[in-house]
Amino acid sequence: MRPLLQIALDQTDLISALKVVDKIKDHVDIVEAGTILCVSEGIRVIRILRALCPKKIIVCDLKVADAGEVLARQAFDAGATFMTVVCAAPLATMLKAKEVADAHQGEIQVELFGNWTFEDAASWVKAGIRQAIYHRGRDAQASGQGWSQADLDKMKKLSDLGVELSITGGVTPDSLETFRDINAKAFIAGRAISDTPDPAASADEFRQQIARLWK
Amino acid sequence: MRPLLQIALDQTDLISALKVVDKIKDHVDIVEAGTILCVSEGIRVIRILRALCPKKIIVCDLKVADAGEVLARQAFDAGATFMTVVCAAPLATMLKAKEVADAHQGEIQVELFGNWTFEDAASWVKAGIRQAIYHRGRDAQASGQGWSQADLDKMKKLSDLGVELSITGGVTPDSLETFRDINAKAFIAGRAISDTPDPAASADEFRQQIARLWK
Repeated sequence: MRPLLQIALDQTDLISALKVVDKIKDHVDIVEAGTILCVSEGIRVIRILRALCPKKIIVCDLKVADAGEVLARQAFDAGATFMTVVCAAPLATMLKAKEVADAHQGEIQVELFGNWTFEDAASWVKAGIRQAIYHRGRDAQASGQGWSQADLDKMKKLSDLGVELSITGGVTPDSLETFRDINAKAFIAGRAISDTPDPAASADEFRQQIARLWK
Repeated sequence: MRPLLQIALDQTDLISALKVVDKIKDHVDIVEAGTILCVSEGIRVIRILRALCPKKIIVCDLKVADAGEVLARQAFDAGATFMTVVCAAPLATMLKAKEVADAHQGEIQVELFGNWTFEDAASWVKAGIRQAIYHRGRDAQASGQGWSQADLDKMKKLSDLGVELSITGGVTPDSLETFRDINAKAFIAGRAISDTPDPAASADEFRQQIARLWK
């Protein structure tokens, strides 16, 4: 399946985020309320995005580590389609969140950070959690770590386990070819779309490149 | 040092949380805005708590996994004393958060979930991050997992590494004796204080028991 394009809204205030949303919402498939924005504004940001983008996939990037049921209820009741959990969360937490997601025809995405294992990933797939986010990490990225062959090998192995990956961390149209053999659900871009002179055109560039590579 | 008493505000709305704050703020040492409350209300909840509890230690339980600098700035600018990060966060993320914390005379607390190692813990201590939260987990707790000898052994080993622990997950006054040999910075209680007929009296019971055990 052709990967989708996801904009990550990582602004620290609602107004700045809404200015981006207004420009790009017809040029992306998925709108993500980033952790920073969720923290800044609270869960009402999801209600606001749902009102503005009634047909879009909306991701609530809470990176849930505990209290899966309550946090999932907050996210999905507000209108989220997907909600993120951290890979270090106990499986019990993920499953509680998944129950709520299921009741809303939503899905859980596992955000991969630090010490996860392929055994963990297999247990998520076995439990019916099919999506994960492969993340280079804002801080890792800032400190100079790039996409390595090790990253690509891990992504391939996750794909082979049946995991659908959303890929993020300094992704650009030019770099998409790197992920040709990965089971990519979505590519997530933030400032590479929002911080350009023409965000809609930048989003279109991503989509055209995706369409070229995944026919 | 005598452990402190921390109330975790895990209400899903501000008004319910404020009712608890009003009753207990003179009976606890630390007031924590739980993840659920932070998600529900956004970071303004920290500003509100700081206004109501100007002299208290205030914990912003964001469980940061990435974007350490921005999230720490949100938390500490709003008035937090401590902010939590998840153990699975890259060390780079923790260090960025710590820089902001240091500039505010604040501290970072590492929340222990899932696959952390004692090598990780040693690296946090080496980097100057002294606090961690040992957590039985709401979902683990609900699914019947108790405090085991394995938990206590791990806490002791963390103590020996120099980690100050805040201990949470169904802690009661009766159970405090279990933690006698641990380097306990604080005991964290939520509903064991807030959901009793007299929350202030329940908090006092915790504190009296702490004073009995740690003379």
